[in-house]
Amino acid sequence: MKVTFQIRGASPVSIECTPGENLLELARRANVAMDAPCSGNGSCGKCRVKLLDGTLETVRSPHITPEEYEAGWRLACNSKVLSDCTVLVPDAAGAYRSRMKTAGLSSPEEIAIFEACQKQLKARGISFDNGFRSLDVVMDSPSLEDTMPDSERLERAVKAILAVENVRIPFAVMVKLARVLRENEFRVCVKGRWENDSFCCMEICPPDDTALVGCAMDIGTTTVTLVLADLKTGEILAKGSCGNGQIRYGADVINRIIQQGRPGGRKELRDAILEETLKPLAANLCETAGISASSILCLSIGANTTMNHLLLGLDAAPIRMEPYIPCFFRWEGLLAGDLELPANPLAPVRIAPNIGSYVGGDITAGTLASGIWDREEMSLFIDLGTNGEIVFGNRDFLMACACSAGPAFEGGDISCGMRATDGAVEAAAIDCVTMEPTLSVIGQPGQKVAGICGSGIIDMISELYRCGIINARGQFQRAGRRILRDAFGSGRYVLAFPEESETGREVSINEVDIDNFIRAKAAIFSGVDTLLRSVDMTADCIDRVYVAGGIGSGINMKNAVSIGMLPDVGTEKFRYIGNSSLSGAYAMAVSDGAYEKCVSLAANMTYLELSACPGYMDSFVAACFIPHTDRSLFSNSVQEG
Amino acid sequence: MKVTFQIRGASPVSIECTPGENLLELARRANVAMDAPCSGNGSCGKCRVKLLDGTLETVRSPHITPEEYEAGWRLACNSKVLSDCTVLVPDAAGAYRSRMKTAGLSSPEEIAIFEACQKQLKARGISFDNGFRSLDVVMDSPSLEDTMPDSERLERAVKAILAVENVRIPFAVMVKLARVLRENEFRVCVKGRWENDSFCCMEICPPDDTALVGCAMDIGTTTVTLVLADLKTGEILAKGSCGNGQIRYGADVINRIIQQGRPGGRKELRDAILEETLKPLAANLCETAGISASSILCLSIGANTTMNHLLLGLDAAPIRMEPYIPCFFRWEGLLAGDLELPANPLAPVRIAPNIGSYVGGDITAGTLASGIWDREEMSLFIDLGTNGEIVFGNRDFLMACACSAGPAFEGGDISCGMRATDGAVEAAAIDCVTMEPTLSVIGQPGQKVAGICGSGIIDMISELYRCGIINARGQFQRAGRRILRDAFGSGRYVLAFPEESETGREVSINEVDIDNFIRAKAAIFSGVDTLLRSVDMTADCIDRVYVAGGIGSGINMKNAVSIGMLPDVGTEKFRYIGNSSLSGAYAMAVSDGAYEKCVSLAANMTYLELSACPGYMDSFVAACFIPHTDRSLFSNSVQEG
Repeated sequence: MKVTFQIRGASPVSIECTPGENLLELARRANVAMDAPCSGNGSCGKCRVKLLDGTLETVRSPHITPEEYEAGWRLACNSKVLSDCTVLVPDAAGAYRSRMKTAGLSSPEEIAIFEACQKQLKARGISFDNGFRSLDVVMDSPSLEDTMPDSERLERAVKAILAVENVRIPFAVMVKLARVLRENEFRVCVKGRWENDSFCCMEICPPDDTALVGCAMDIGTTTVTLVLADLKTGEILAKGSCGNGQIRYGADVINRIIQQGRPGGRKELRDAILEETLKPLAANLCETAGISASSILCLSIGANTTMNHLLLGLDAAPIRMEPYIPCFFRWEGLLAGDLELPANPLAPVRIAPNIGSYVGGDITAGTLASGIWDREEMSLFIDLGTNGEIVFGNRDFLMACACSAGPAFEGGDISCGMRATDGAVEAAAIDCVTMEPTLSVIGQPGQKVAGICGSGIIDMISELYRCGIINARGQFQRAGRRILRDAFGSGRYVLAFPEESETGREVSINEVDIDNFIRAKAAIFSGVDTLLRSVDMTADCIDRVYVAGGIGSGINMKNAVSIGMLPDVGTEKFRYIGNSSLSGAYAMAVSDGAYEKCVSLAANMTYLELSACPGYMDSFVAACFIPHTDRSLFSNSVQEG
Repeated sequence: MKVTFQIRGASPVSIECTPGENLLELARRANVAMDAPCSGNGSCGKCRVKLLDGTLETVRSPHITPEEYEAGWRLACNSKVLSDCTVLVPDAAGAYRSRMKTAGLSSPEEIAIFEACQKQLKARGISFDNGFRSLDVVMDSPSLEDTMPDSERLERAVKAILAVENVRIPFAVMVKLARVLRENEFRVCVKGRWENDSFCCMEICPPDDTALVGCAMDIGTTTVTLVLADLKTGEILAKGSCGNGQIRYGADVINRIIQQGRPGGRKELRDAILEETLKPLAANLCETAGISASSILCLSIGANTTMNHLLLGLDAAPIRMEPYIPCFFRWEGLLAGDLELPANPLAPVRIAPNIGSYVGGDITAGTLASGIWDREEMSLFIDLGTNGEIVFGNRDFLMACACSAGPAFEGGDISCGMRATDGAVEAAAIDCVTMEPTLSVIGQPGQKVAGICGSGIIDMISELYRCGIINARGQFQRAGRRILRDAFGSGRYVLAFPEESETGREVSINEVDIDNFIRAKAAIFSGVDTLLRSVDMTADCIDRVYVAGGIGSGINMKNAVSIGMLPDVGTEKFRYIGNSSLSGAYAMAVSDGAYEKCVSLAANMTYLELSACPGYMDSFVAACFIPHTDRSLFSNSVQEG
């Protein structure tokens, strides 16, 4: 039996199967990209396919209207294959594919972020030095009078240059030593690093290849971003990002942990991030930078606890089972070769330490980059990604917690939600009178609307509330051309009618979406509230708010405050610092001191388990309104709804 | 086109080929064991096959008589395949197969050699301690009140037991940490080693698996021998040996170096020793000892310079090209995992240092085991293997050289020569009057003669000379039933007529054989002579002579002196010390101090390049007689011939 996937913009893919197999599983096996943020349990409704030919046995889903069902639409996760089938994978699912594209080189603005990070850390006493070196090594050619073996010849020459006692030549270098020395007539470039009082020769090259490169990796649940940086100058050589290939195993860490626990799952998840994501992305960047992977002598990783485990192939199951124990927080000694990462196999891998099962290295790296650990003033650091994590404190203490915000900030749990990619509404305004929207859509001019990303949802909810279209509970209370209601009376606001949209389907935001998002923003707000209360402080104590994370690039801080997501402390205190996990990883790759600082600040961070805090649930429930049940908390920003 | 090899005692093997392919190459490709000590250049005449069916184009060889040719006998190395063929691979070639058999456990006598080595080194101040440990680690199970990650939990427990600051958990352990801790309810055995002031956890096991094992490897050009030893007590757990699988690429190091230089050759040679030889042998020993390979925490290697290079996959070509530069003499930091050796991947590999292109780690390990480096008396240490190496000195100095003795001691370059395996004449005496031989043959009672091994050749030449059958030049000068001459008048002595022999072919020793052997023994004698002269000494200065190596087990020292192979210093000074390379490797595996001693004595050995010594050639030429042109050198032992 055979299933053929027709994919817009790509060649069809066929796969053999046996009767009764699940269509989503088949798509995964066939490497057909399909959005399945709920990991196939039928709840998200994103794995839509159109049956063109053949028979599927499908459990009916509320996500498919009777008209759609009639037209052939099915959820892949709910469908069993009963005969040879041909299905169309619509372009909406292709958003996944587009996310897998490698982004180009950085713009000057993006590069400025790294320069700012370097400047900021230097100002705080972190030296941007490291122990990596490239040496121009010239040796006498051997003769009958001088029969020193190759390794000793190299060792002596390196010792003479560095005035060092011990020189280590590892296996990978020894294997090519004879050839490289002779091909280059005993003049070579040796790349290596200091290991305490000895020098390790990590690579031996022709004398003109002197590149020393560090690779910083931000491995997000959704998006992976890498930069290559010159280890001598800190200069950014290349930057690129793409989707995390694990996404087809679920949008959030919980679904991925479940998947990795199935037979062969650890390897599948590891292959998805390593083989499908990191290797092609790194190869692409190496080509852009004109360097060989073996010139990458240092790697650093900013990733959450689960992503760290899945990358290393460690069993992540205990992370989600009481008592929630990860394999490691801090771990040194990993080499690129252990993981077969695309780099010199001897390159150390510097993992930003985790501090809890749900506060990982992305947050410690981000905290490093934010500089809040060195300031007297009290800072709040919020990373808005697939979940939300919060750090609060100053040079004297740091508290951290994770909020169960779910994937809403990245478009998950939202009917027309999508990630910040082509076709996504990233900003919006509504005319209070006409109730007509003004939308900012990601993409080339003329790009039609395909869905809404996190920052667009914030704007929409803020504007709907400001215009009185929805009330504080998120229920629709005005009528108009763009406000439709379903059979049960539940309202929705249409951003794009079917004929206006990219997909031919209506793009709207409904009451269920708003409710989901309100719970997500309430998780953040009550997290901040609980964290502050745990140190007997209030929002008044906050001197600065640093917002980081993928959601943030288009985020309208004022709107985020007005819906009660962020505390109402005055927008002048807010600062968007971009992908702070990547900035921190960059610093750790290039600077030995930054890595040490990240390790030490992680060791001194206190992890607060919100669910164990008295009052957290009350705080959460109170925050499940727009902006909050206690409007006095938002007296600066809020206009009456 | 297809060639089928019929092999006595084994199933036939077929291989596809194209017209004109070389039959020996095909045998190699088909993994059909065939003796080819000359590596296929037609000079040794050992790769005999009998053509049963089909057509070969064969260059005529002096090794095949016209009668044999008529009967179908060919040399595989001289034959091209012209049609589908079936050839018989005779049992003589099967000697190779029998060498590939793993020997059983050691006899008490063999084990006594290791005990003696340990005793001797202890008496010389070498402690039999090492840094390997197994720890019974009991941890609290995690709970909601105690959420320390697995790695930290383990680290803390190990720190508490050892009172150590730093504990390293490598990747290989981290990967299975979660599972092993939970399967064993947080009570485990940790196996590891001290690395300066930190402890590295190399393995984590159930609490009852506490085996700490070292594996010592003697990797000879011809034979490979391994022992497993308990790292706590030094006890021998298992011992076994087999042929070096590289032998089908040539009997000596020069031919192997040529072979490894061909495309793909390095991998072929490495696979032959690693995959075909070491892995099965080690697996066999692990089974015998009832341990898992991951319990092997330390490896040590005694091997000559070329064997070291070929095992590691290093380019050996510069070793045989002027100015004869190996890749390394001493090299630390290799791990079992680098080579995929059958052991814990983190096990350090301790390579006995080479001191020259032709004096390798087998000699430095053997010197360690001999104890000559700690004695006041002057000792001569001779290792008789595929070549011969000599060390002379005492606690104050050590000189070493290599003799170009070739493979004669192991039966190479001898028409009916073979290695010391079933059917080999290992000792012989001749009745002066009847000229009839009394032969001692290796094997079960009733074993027929198949050939002569090194110790048998020494006895034969000594006895032929003593009985006046040959003169001092090795020419036959008596007549008798067993003394035959060819068409050119060249004589030979028949040990077994065709009807008496294992193979149905005559087993004899002829003038060419004797001439070859005389050159080999002259190389040893003149090596000793030149080495002594280089330090202004004579044979009178020698207090002891240690003879080591595979040839030695059956060697008759008196006969070896009487033919002028060893100096005439009184047989009471001679001592056979068995496989000293293996004994030394054993000491290095079990004792950190023995390894350090081996490294330091190697660093202090002086390598003498014989070919660069004035007078060496004269000395060699003078020794090319029985026993020597200067009979006064052998006044103790020699009766007139």
